[in-house]
Amino acid sequence: MTRRVEILRRAAEVFSRQGVANTSIEDIANEVGIKREGVYYYFRSREDILLEIVLPQSRTLLFNFSNIIESKRPVMERLHAAMRNHLESYDPGYVEMAVALREDHNLNGRGSGKAERKSADRKKQQELRRVWKDYTALWLRLVKEGQESGEFDAALDAKMVAFGILGMCNWLSRWYDPRKPVPIDEIVTTFFAMVSRGIGAPHDQGAEFAKLA
Amino acid sequence: MTRRVEILRRAAEVFSRQGVANTSIEDIANEVGIKREGVYYYFRSREDILLEIVLPQSRTLLFNFSNIIESKRPVMERLHAAMRNHLESYDPGYVEMAVALREDHNLNGRGSGKAERKSADRKKQQELRRVWKDYTALWLRLVKEGQESGEFDAALDAKMVAFGILGMCNWLSRWYDPRKPVPIDEIVTTFFAMVSRGIGAPHDQGAEFAKLA
Repeated sequence: MTRRVEILRRAAEVFSRQGVANTSIEDIANEVGIKREGVYYYFRSREDILLEIVLPQSRTLLFNFSNIIESKRPVMERLHAAMRNHLESYDPGYVEMAVALREDHNLNGRGSGKAERKSADRKKQQELRRVWKDYTALWLRLVKEGQESGEFDAALDAKMVAFGILGMCNWLSRWYDPRKPVPIDEIVTTFFAMVSRGIGAPHDQGAEFAKLA
Repeated sequence: MTRRVEILRRAAEVFSRQGVANTSIEDIANEVGIKREGVYYYFRSREDILLEIVLPQSRTLLFNFSNIIESKRPVMERLHAAMRNHLESYDPGYVEMAVALREDHNLNGRGSGKAERKSADRKKQQELRRVWKDYTALWLRLVKEGQESGEFDAALDAKMVAFGILGMCNWLSRWYDPRKPVPIDEIVTTFFAMVSRGIGAPHDQGAEFAKLA
């Protein structure tokens, strides 16, 4: 593990434990066991570190989801794969995602600092917002596709359904405790059961779930 | 509206707009159109203001939920009422709840200030944590009661079901936009449809929903 990667990993742990707003560069340096200057050698600011943690994770999440959506599998199977893809981001090794989802209001570019520094941060923030926007849009597309094919109940509002699923999954960032991990597989099974029955077209509720669970 | 209440209301708006971490007492004073000293006359700190916004809302949410749980109505009806109770906290008039749910990591007592001030804040923080803990415990109780009575599917993990429902509902704090409000009734209808079918016992899926929707 390079020093840069180590700083990112430790920073993610501190952020997750005490919140970005309550974390100083000094806290991060202490966690790594180096001086503040050692952190500044690699990163411009706390926001810079946060973005470097969150962006790669978010890009991967989106990339994998795109592949799932584009695959030719039945929509109920793609829903299952998409929920698994999202929930596995919370694997004990991935506290980063939890941080990301909990802290997005800290990424609005109001931090102090020189103009050029802010501008570099802003570009990354814009990319992050774009990634999340695309991710949400893809969820909406999956739901609508399922409604059009008759596998999902078309009487439900597609956008709210998408937000509902995202909410269930994203809320893990609040209750999931990496120190007392619940197997992600169990969460996927329970949440997929709830969602597949919850939004499945009335005539085949449960059937698809029984096949996949 | 007294000055004190006005400060709380305006502060909730600024918090909601730019995040607690990015809001200064000065921002709040500007929003009200007074000087910083005018804010400090009523409140000790930003955290104090946040707690004064969040605590009464949370107490009300818990109180109403207790009444719903204790009522003798069928469990599916109580689920519906409980989801409505929770979601109505996001009514455009209640940006406070959104703030509360988004910011709980800012309530961990690490703020600067005199010892007695911190101690007063800490008591309120403890109460808030207790209220939320009780609220979550009541949700778990509702789910288990439904499973025991045979109305909810007992094969699902009760705790994850409770967290799933809370996640759907709480995630509104991220996407609900008071400037472009979606009618809360529509959200209640969609989410209740998803959840009641999602966790209903396999034999009567949809039946109870059809009755209530």
